Amino acid sequence: MPFLLALDAGGTSTRATLVDRTGNCVSYARAGSGNPISSGTEYASAQLVLAAEAAVKSAGVAPSHIDSVLMAMAGMSVNASTDWISQPMKKRGFTGAIRLESDLLATFFSGTWEPEGYGVVAGTGSAGIRVRRGEVERSADGLGWLLGDVGSGFWIGHRVARAVMATLDGRAGPTGLTALLLEELGIPATGQRIVHGRLESLRLATDALYRLRPIELSRFAPLAFAVADDATAGSILADAAEALAGLFQAIASPNVTGPLVLGGSILAQEGVVAQSLSAAAAASGLVTTTHQVPDGMVGAIVLSLRSAGVEVGADVFQRIVATLAGLR
Amino acid sequence: MPFLLALDAGGTSTRATLVDRTGNCVSYARAGSGNPISSGTEYASAQLVLAAEAAVKSAGVAPSHIDSVLMAMAGMSVNASTDWISQPMKKRGFTGAIRLESDLLATFFSGTWEPEGYGVVAGTGSAGIRVRRGEVERSADGLGWLLGDVGSGFWIGHRVARAVMATLDGRAGPTGLTALLLEELGIPATGQRIVHGRLESLRLATDALYRLRPIELSRFAPLAFAVADDATAGSILADAAEALAGLFQAIASPNVTGPLVLGGSILAQEGVVAQSLSAAAAASGLVTTTHQVPDGMVGAIVLSLRSAGVEVGADVFQRIVATLAGLR
Repeated sequence: MPFLLALDAGGTSTRATLVDRTGNCVSYARAGSGNPISSGTEYASAQLVLAAEAAVKSAGVAPSHIDSVLMAMAGMSVNASTDWISQPMKKRGFTGAIRLESDLLATFFSGTWEPEGYGVVAGTGSAGIRVRRGEVERSADGLGWLLGDVGSGFWIGHRVARAVMATLDGRAGPTGLTALLLEELGIPATGQRIVHGRLESLRLATDALYRLRPIELSRFAPLAFAVADDATAGSILADAAEALAGLFQAIASPNVTGPLVLGGSILAQEGVVAQSLSAAAAASGLVTTTHQVPDGMVGAIVLSLRSAGVEVGADVFQRIVATLAGLR
Repeated sequence: MPFLLALDAGGTSTRATLVDRTGNCVSYARAGSGNPISSGTEYASAQLVLAAEAAVKSAGVAPSHIDSVLMAMAGMSVNASTDWISQPMKKRGFTGAIRLESDLLATFFSGTWEPEGYGVVAGTGSAGIRVRRGEVERSADGLGWLLGDVGSGFWIGHRVARAVMATLDGRAGPTGLTALLLEELGIPATGQRIVHGRLESLRLATDALYRLRPIELSRFAPLAFAVADDATAGSILADAAEALAGLFQAIASPNVTGPLVLGGSILAQEGVVAQSLSAAAAASGLVTTTHQVPDGMVGAIVLSLRSAGVEVGADVFQRIVATLAGLR
């Protein structure tokens, strides 16, 4: 029986699953970042090959017996060039066809087999898609930390950092975020000293934060969830929820009714952000059910089966979910 | 009669004035950026030397006859090290003592000779100071584009860019800023085409904006002033005004009553930002008069005279302003 290989390449890790044509997952493996945009094509292709080899090896299948490989990753579509990855894969014996797909579409199909609906992801960045006839009909945001990514981890973490700076600078009242951020940055209590008319902790925090790449400010997003009752944190999270509701409005269409699939670390957190987004989506009358998914692995498998001509309905989808859960 | 040399080093240009001990300005010259933080010490010191040499040369004075040189620049105080600039200056014959001072203090003393009051600057960045007994007693913001600089050119220009991206992305209604920004970026009308479910102009604008250094987004701040009646632009400017009023609150103290000096390109623009800030300051009861200044040149001269033991009151101040105006 021929096997298909599906990969879900994220900015932190890459997942690979070997599946048969009935949706039965037979092996699963992981490697590092397979995102060629954030990690470079050389590193990303090495990680993709690593994950692919580990998956076939643990199933005792030869790479040359894999008919087709589907890779879901950020910024990709079936129109994207596969040159950078097909050569390294061929060298390791993967002679089957390679197809790239949108990570957003893979996230959507990780929550549903239905061909129409909506997907919203808020992790380090954020983006939304409307899916129709199994394809992306409309996408919104995903414009990066400087110009968009509303309600994302960077968006929230950046506001956390700015709010604490405003407090230490005397431009805003106290917030519970201050102690959390200073602790996270390893700034000691002696930062309470006044040097040249300013709090020493303000100077130390400014220096520490500018040493990070801007996108790394996303690591402070969890602080807002940790003190969500705090007025400043609560207002940041309420703004994020409103921004993500606006993102949903941008992809919503009266012609598409179906499930809403939520992905990414921000929407995985309990609380106001995921709740408000789900409520706004439900109020639109366009959303039948809401599903939260940890990544795009199930959806990459769905897309892999469909591109091989297998029809994926409720039964096959359930088999993928159940057998994959047994492997990881 | 011995001369003093005062320099006002900005991020765009450096100004130098030769002045006698009565406040009579005898020559004036300009060079490129003399800010060692934004331009590097090598470039900045070369421009400072260039401006200094041009000023003494046009007055026919030998560099060795200058007793003392005062340089006002961002991030500096009298405690800052002068090593990076004193060697290049000595090599060109400037053997007098070199003293560095805060550009914010120089901006303040460009509007008044009085020893107490408030200074607020909003150019590419923003910051405020409270001045007491001729020195900075308290400063606020100046924390840079990522963490602070509320109401600054970057702050406004960044919001202009994000607002237009939200409109092109379907997350916000139309704004008069869109046409202005696309024109500024040279994006043609064919950008109205839909490619892969998105406006072509959105992709072109995103690519163009990420090619800039983040701080360069400040160049879009004037677009908000150009269509201040537009709801989106008006709300950006109102937020900037509110943020700068908050900056004033942070430096305000019941112990200091005096003039408010406004500097920087944003506060030089007619309209809601400078007006609201002046109104908030006047309402505090701590501000006697408000002055707008184009740069810190007059103040650098005031600081230079004072550090040489000259008392600068209303008469000397007026002589500086009048004779400098005749030179530039």
